[in-house]
Amino acid sequence: MNSTEKLSVLVWNEGVHESLNEPEHIGRIYPQGIHGAIADGLREAIPGADISTATLASDEDHGLSEETLAATDVLLWWGHKAHAEVSDRVVERVQRHVLGGMGLIVLHSGHFAKIFTRLLGTSCSLAWRNDGERELVWTVKPSHPIADGVENPIVIPQQEMYGELFDIPDPDDLIFISSFAGGEVFRSGVTFTRGKGRIFYFSPGDQEYPVYHHPQVRRVIANGVSWAAQPETRRVAPEVSNRPLGWFETHASPETQDRHAPSIVPWEVL
Amino acid sequence: MNSTEKLSVLVWNEGVHESLNEPEHIGRIYPQGIHGAIADGLREAIPGADISTATLASDEDHGLSEETLAATDVLLWWGHKAHAEVSDRVVERVQRHVLGGMGLIVLHSGHFAKIFTRLLGTSCSLAWRNDGERELVWTVKPSHPIADGVENPIVIPQQEMYGELFDIPDPDDLIFISSFAGGEVFRSGVTFTRGKGRIFYFSPGDQEYPVYHHPQVRRVIANGVSWAAQPETRRVAPEVSNRPLGWFETHASPETQDRHAPSIVPWEVL
Amino acid sequence: MNSTEKLSVLVWNEGVHESLNEPEHIGRIYPQGIHGAIADGLREAIPGADISTATLASDEDHGLSEETLAATDVLLWWGHKAHAEVSDRVVERVQRHVLGGMGLIVLHSGHFAKIFTRLLGTSCSLAWRNDGERELVWTVKPSHPIADGVENPIVIPQQEMYGELFDIPDPDDLIFISSFAGGEVFRSGVTFTRGKGRIFYFSPGDQEYPVYHHPQVRRVIANGVSWAAQPETRRVAPEVSNRPLGWFETHASPETQDRHAPSIVPWEVL
Amino acid sequence: MNSTEKLSVLVWNEGVHESLNEPEHIGRIYPQGIHGAIADGLREAIPGADISTATLASDEDHGLSEETLAATDVLLWWGHKAHAEVSDRVVERVQRHVLGGMGLIVLHSGHFAKIFTRLLGTSCSLAWRNDGERELVWTVKPSHPIADGVENPIVIPQQEMYGELFDIPDPDDLIFISSFAGGEVFRSGVTFTRGKGRIFYFSPGDQEYPVYHHPQVRRVIANGVSWAAQPETRRVAPEVSNRPLGWFETHASPETQDRHAPSIVPWEVL
Repeated sequence: MNSTEKLSVLVWNEGVHESLNEPEHIGRIYPQGIHGAIADGLREAIPGADISTATLASDEDHGLSEETLAATDVLLWWGHKAHAEVSDRVVERVQRHVLGGMGLIVLHSGHFAKIFTRLLGTSCSLAWRNDGERELVWTVKPSHPIADGVENPIVIPQQEMYGELFDIPDPDDLIFISSFAGGEVFRSGVTFTRGKGRIFYFSPGDQEYPVYHHPQVRRVIANGVSWAAQPETRRVAPEVSNRPLGWFETHASPETQDRHAPSIVPWEVL
Repeated sequence: MNSTEKLSVLVWNEGVHESLNEPEHIGRIYPQGIHGAIADGLREAIPGADISTATLASDEDHGLSEETLAATDVLLWWGHKAHAEVSDRVVERVQRHVLGGMGLIVLHSGHFAKIFTRLLGTSCSLAWRNDGERELVWTVKPSHPIADGVENPIVIPQQEMYGELFDIPDPDDLIFISSFAGGEVFRSGVTFTRGKGRIFYFSPGDQEYPVYHHPQVRRVIANGVSWAAQPETRRVAPEVSNRPLGWFETHASPETQDRHAPSIVPWEVL
Repeated sequence: MNSTEKLSVLVWNEGVHESLNEPEHIGRIYPQGIHGAIADGLREAIPGADISTATLASDEDHGLSEETLAATDVLLWWGHKAHAEVSDRVVERVQRHVLGGMGLIVLHSGHFAKIFTRLLGTSCSLAWRNDGERELVWTVKPSHPIADGVENPIVIPQQEMYGELFDIPDPDDLIFISSFAGGEVFRSGVTFTRGKGRIFYFSPGDQEYPVYHHPQVRRVIANGVSWAAQPETRRVAPEVSNRPLGWFETHASPETQDRHAPSIVPWEVL
Repeated sequence: MNSTEKLSVLVWNEGVHESLNEPEHIGRIYPQGIHGAIADGLREAIPGADISTATLASDEDHGLSEETLAATDVLLWWGHKAHAEVSDRVVERVQRHVLGGMGLIVLHSGHFAKIFTRLLGTSCSLAWRNDGERELVWTVKPSHPIADGVENPIVIPQQEMYGELFDIPDPDDLIFISSFAGGEVFRSGVTFTRGKGRIFYFSPGDQEYPVYHHPQVRRVIANGVSWAAQPETRRVAPEVSNRPLGWFETHASPETQDRHAPSIVPWEVL
């Protein structure tokens, strides 16, 4: 994307809770599906962006073809019941695009998505309890762009509890920590870098509670999209290279040579 | 600053090498002073910004009054011979503004500036040798905004060597590592967070070599300014607070309450 | 210290709550002072170590002379009412020893101690409330030596609440996160490196509650001491050095040359 | 392992260069194979440990059966030509043991081993050149146990060049940075945590040069083994759990309940 083009965002949802009508009230809180509510929030927060959606059933690629990913700046991922049904081929493709610079926002039960455990290398397991407890989301890194303008704490009246130990690698940035009425805590907003790609995991959100209508949750997700987007990055994952001695003296790096004129430095004045 | 206002950047230089004409050729490579060259680079790279300069001799506050800092989004710092002459009162003031959200870019020999050692808590000592060696600046975190569009490596024909051990705390992000012809390495581009403020240290640059004319060095510094700026942040350093039980149920946090309407969440649909 | 010598640990407490008898029941929960209780816990947990104590009133150096610090592997710090009375000369001395490799454990209200804010560079401010709330201390980095054998969570029946935002730099390791009955969270166990020294901050502990008798709190503190100790490190803070080209080809580094024979590598077989 | 038992270390090498006699002189520099040289170094450095070896051809599990891994405190991994021949079943098993607390040391060309890319989630690609260049290994985190007593820099007369960009996630700790005669740099000593397991990657070492005879390289590897070992940790990877409200009030965590008596705290004095 160049600066005259629109940011391209794709909200992916497995869409299984919606098709099974589980829970029964899901149609009332998410009439357009969970992805529909997330997309609505993004359209409101980032007016200039192109926001689309896809689901597991979209097509044989779950709506995540090579062409679609190549045109996507940031992919959001919601899944829960059907992680195993996501094809390994698609997971490998998404990983490659993330390593090449596509942003990835993983939400709530997406912690167990194949793409997340593959990128993180851990079990991504956690403790949970669905008692409709109040969740408080506390900002612990106010300087981070994802915390910009976010109330501290965010008060979510009812939520599924996610608790530590959250088996993830040390994140690059720990932005939010949640507590639940029952006393558990959770690192609920964390960032990672993999290859050239930026990843943000944010735990609030569930199929039983209208969390994706919460204005502050919407703000965090929109901030996450803006932070993860690198529209000007050439979408190539890092690769092994065999370099001759002194290669850099005559060549710009492949990454930059197509965008920059040779450096001319006035060393002759010395 | 709101989005209709200009980014405000202040380039501070002790200005002592220039006034002493040390080295003799400094007037040829930096006719407007080191700060003048840095400011020129920023004016070219960030056309919409308001770029100004100040020096140790500007006034009794070294040009860093409360009013000036309050209006500054990002402060750049170059010092070498006169670190001890910077008043403690001004250092305390700059620290407070950084904790409140002002960006700070510390350059080259500024590693020993009072403001840097005070914010980092270490000696910030290093190994050095001034033999005019070639410096190569390698990108190790290509996903970081400060690395955006930067050649890898940057080739600087002649430089003062700065080598490890660089006695700094573990940085938030390690973006650049330099090597020198003599074999030493240096963590030459690192970020830190202190309070709400973002800090970037970048080592290339010296009073003897025209490093601040190098297009790639200029690009890195401009990227650093854009990354460190938080013009919408209320400039208040974090403070101790005594909170009554359940304070968050009725009050938005002081940080955000002046900018956000109360959250209205459709929990009644449940 | 070599391996045949004892680990030397010094528990420092300002000792002001004890001398003022504030709160009135302090003598019942800490009959030997806060430092006495901490020292007792360490003597039990690390039988082979030499555990001593000092207070603000010990002598003109608050019991922290150059000689004492030089012989101390790990210093523990408890302060609250009298941070301002600690002399800057002593603070500078402690900082220098930490940079040179002395371990430092800062406890509870020591977050505002001069030595802590100086080493961290931030305000170290936080939110607090003294309502005797239950604190739960959750382990989030089970692989860290300081978490070894620690119950998850530690349940502390009554405590002063310490809440975010805790204005500290990003820690090297985040080991514990606490929640309080009122809903606040706190990064209660964090490590930092400054120079060659290892620092551990642990927030549980107060003058009003018998927290330092809690077996799990004692275990954490003992683990912290074991982790922070580097008895074989030469106690010299990192210093600036001016190195000739190729110095490393003939000289071992000053840090190691007194302990290692020259490297002899069988490269001749090639 | 309890404190009366021996540390159990397993050095794994694919063993293909040795069996193919590539390069021709490999038998002269590594007469017992690369694994034999590494094991010799460990036997000398950690006399009390039980050091064994295994190779790809050891048995149908490459010598890495469930029983063997269960009894292994730290596994070292060397591979180059035969990464693809390591069975996925064994890789999954090793990953599970790492998440459960087994230490893992990955050496040199092991950067492309399945187990390493799976645990890290990135391509682990790098730049390389085999010109027999001098490598200098600089310590940048002297407080880390792996740097203990290590010369700074380590001078390795001839080595294969490994250069940035090394496509790894941000490490927990960056301990060593190497430079090469040709000017490239490399993050040559880095640690990661995955689950409860500690991972150390160290790049020096090759089938063409006698690097594993270098006393300083041997010291680093031995330090790595000592740091990564957690013999007292129950070997269970983190798992999802569904916790009832208030579960922690009556139960110690499964991780610790078998080792600790219930906490008895003298709160009654209040």
